[in-house]
Amino acid sequence: MADDVMSIDAQTYPVSRIDLVEVRVAIDEKLREFFAGKATWANGSELADVVDALRDYLLGGGKRLRPLLAYCGWRAAGGKAGHDPALRAAASLELFHAFALIHDDIIDVAESRRGRPSLHRTLARRHGDRGDAASVERLGTSSAILVGDLAMVWSDELLHASGMSMRQLAAARPLLDAMRTELMYGQYLDLMGTGAAPRDAGAALTIARYKSGKYTIERPLHIGARLAGADQRLLDACSAFGLPIGEAFQLRDDLLGIFGDPVVTGKSRLDDLRDGKGTVLLALALRRADESGRATLTRLVGDPELDEEGAARVRRVFVDSGAVGVVEEMIQERLRQGLAVLDSAPFQPEAAAALREMAHAATVRAA
Amino acid sequence: MADDVMSIDAQTYPVSRIDLVEVRVAIDEKLREFFAGKATWANGSELADVVDALRDYLLGGGKRLRPLLAYCGWRAAGGKAGHDPALRAAASLELFHAFALIHDDIIDVAESRRGRPSLHRTLARRHGDRGDAASVERLGTSSAILVGDLAMVWSDELLHASGMSMRQLAAARPLLDAMRTELMYGQYLDLMGTGAAPRDAGAALTIARYKSGKYTIERPLHIGARLAGADQRLLDACSAFGLPIGEAFQLRDDLLGIFGDPVVTGKSRLDDLRDGKGTVLLALALRRADESGRATLTRLVGDPELDEEGAARVRRVFVDSGAVGVVEEMIQERLRQGLAVLDSAPFQPEAAAALREMAHAATVRAA
Repeated sequence: MADDVMSIDAQTYPVSRIDLVEVRVAIDEKLREFFAGKATWANGSELADVVDALRDYLLGGGKRLRPLLAYCGWRAAGGKAGHDPALRAAASLELFHAFALIHDDIIDVAESRRGRPSLHRTLARRHGDRGDAASVERLGTSSAILVGDLAMVWSDELLHASGMSMRQLAAARPLLDAMRTELMYGQYLDLMGTGAAPRDAGAALTIARYKSGKYTIERPLHIGARLAGADQRLLDACSAFGLPIGEAFQLRDDLLGIFGDPVVTGKSRLDDLRDGKGTVLLALALRRADESGRATLTRLVGDPELDEEGAARVRRVFVDSGAVGVVEEMIQERLRQGLAVLDSAPFQPEAAAALREMAHAATVRAA
Repeated sequence: MADDVMSIDAQTYPVSRIDLVEVRVAIDEKLREFFAGKATWANGSELADVVDALRDYLLGGGKRLRPLLAYCGWRAAGGKAGHDPALRAAASLELFHAFALIHDDIIDVAESRRGRPSLHRTLARRHGDRGDAASVERLGTSSAILVGDLAMVWSDELLHASGMSMRQLAAARPLLDAMRTELMYGQYLDLMGTGAAPRDAGAALTIARYKSGKYTIERPLHIGARLAGADQRLLDACSAFGLPIGEAFQLRDDLLGIFGDPVVTGKSRLDDLRDGKGTVLLALALRRADESGRATLTRLVGDPELDEEGAARVRRVFVDSGAVGVVEEMIQERLRQGLAVLDSAPFQPEAAAALREMAHAATVRAA
C-alpha cells in the first residue's frame, strides 16, 4: 500500500524539470506586480512618469539571466518550486541590473540597449521641448542617473518585501553586498581600461571575472542558494560552476558586441570598437596580428568616428590573427569546466539540469 | 538606604546631556574604521584610489546632520548611550548622503561642495593626462557616478554589519527604504523644476518637504528610533518635530545659497541663481516684486553666465520685495512649531534637549 502510494506520487509528481520559460514568466509577473504598486503610489504625481519609464525599460527586454540563476540557486539548495518569496527575491536582481545598465549606458554614452533607446535617450526625448540640444541631453542624463538610483533603491525594497524571513534575508545579505561591490569594481576597472589598449588578456579577464563571472552568474546563484539555507560546500560548488561560465558568458558577449547581429543583440556593433573596449579578444589580436594588422587595430579601435568599412577591416584582423578562434576555444574550455562541476555538485538534480541548460544558453547564443 | 543608593546614583550618573560634538567624533571614528577595512581590502588594487577618494570626500567636511539625528532618534526611544551598533548604523546614513551629494553635484555640474572640489572634479583632475578636456571631464563624471553608487552600496553594508540584530534591522528597513525613495522623488522634482520658474511657493515647498523635511530630519530620526524599538506614537512625534524643522532647514539653505558667505558655506553663491533653482524664495519674490523687479528676476535668474554684479541686483530684488523677510518669518514659524512638539513628545529628556539644540543649529546657521 505504502509502495503503491509512493509510486503513484512519483508518477503524478515526478522530479520535475524546471521550466525556465515558465520561471521567467513568473518573474516578470512579480516585477509587474511591483510596478503596479508603485504606479498606484505615484498616481497623479510627477513621479508617475518615472515609474512608467523604468517599468517600460525593465519589461521591454532582457533575458532575466540573474533572476533565473538566483531561482536555480534556490532550487539547487532545496528551495520549494514556484515559491512566491523566492520569485520576488530573484526578480529584485533584475531591478538591480536595470540600475547597473542605466548607469552603464550613461557612462558609455550608449544610444541603445536591448534594441531600444537607452534610458537617458528616452528621457531626453520626453523633454525635447526644454531648451537646446545640449540642455535636453543633460536633462536626459541627469534624470537617468536618478532613475537608475531609484532602481537600486527599489531592488532592495522588493527584496525586503519579498516575504522571505528575517533570518533568510540576513543570511543572503553579505552575498548581495559582495555582489554589488564587485560589480562596481568591475565597472570601474572597465571604465579605467576603456580607450587604453588592454595590457594583456589577463587584465581583460580580470574585468570579465568581476563583471560577469561573479556578478552575472556566481553571486545570483549564491544569493538564491543562501536564501534556501545553503551551506558553504554548496556555495563553493556555485562558484566552481559560476566563475568559468560567467567568463565564457562575457567572452561571448565581447564577440557578439563586434560580430553579432544588431537586430538580434539589440546593440550597435560599432560601439565597443569605437569605445576601444579592452576585451580579451582585442588583447589577443594585438598580440597575434602581424605588423600591418596591429597597425590597423591601433589606428581604428577607439576611433569614435569608426564607420562600417573600418569595422569590417578590424573584424578581418580579429579573424585572421586567430584571436576569434582562440576566444571560441576559451569559451568551450570554460563551458566544459562549468558543466563538469554539475556532475558532482551537491545540487538538487532538477536544478543541475536547469543550470546545464542555462550554461549552454549563456555561452552559445546569438543575443 | 535604598533612597541613599538612588540619590548617589542620580548624582554619579545624572540624566546626562547628549554631547553632540562627542557623538559627531564617535560617528567619524566609525566611518574611519569602515574605510580602514575597505582600504585593507583594496590594498594594491586599482580600487585603492576609489576608496581614498570617497574617504577624503566624506571625511573632508559636512555636518553629520543625519547621523546625529539618527542617534538622537535612537536615544529618544530609549536606546543606550554610546552604543557602538547605533553609532555605526547612524554613520551609514552619512555614506548614503555622500552618494546623494556626489550624484547631485554631477547633475548640477557643481564645481565645489563643502568648500572643496566636487568629486567629479577631483576625479577628473586625477585623470588630467588622459586625453582632451572633454574626455577628462567625461571620465571624471563617469567615475563619480560609480563612486556614488559604491557609497550607496557601502552605506547598506555598514548598516548590515553594524551589529544591530536582525529584528532591529528588519524593523528599521521600511523606513530606510521610504527615505531613499523620497529623496529620489525630491531630487527628481527639483531637477524637473530647475530652469523653470516655480509655479508657486507651494510647489517649491513640496520639494523642500521631500528633500529636507523627510530626508534630512524626519527619516533619520525614524530610523534611529525604530532601531531602538520605538512605537508608532513616538515615530509620529518624530514626524511632527522633523517636518517643520526640515522645511526650515531647507528654507535656510536656500537663503544661504544666495546670501551666505562662500568661505563659510563651502558653496558658490552664484550656482543656485545660475541654475535658476526653483526655491520658495524665488517664487515669493516673483509674486511680490514690482514690474521692474520681476523683469530683473526673469532676465537674470537661470542665466548660466550670471556674474557677481547681476547676482547683486537679484539679491536686491529678493530683499526689497520682502521675500527674504517672509522666508525668515517662515523659518521662525516652523522652528517654533517644531520646538513646541518637543515639549510634549514621548522622548527621553536628554534626547529632547539635544533635538532642541539641533533645531536651532539647523535653522539659525551660517553654513
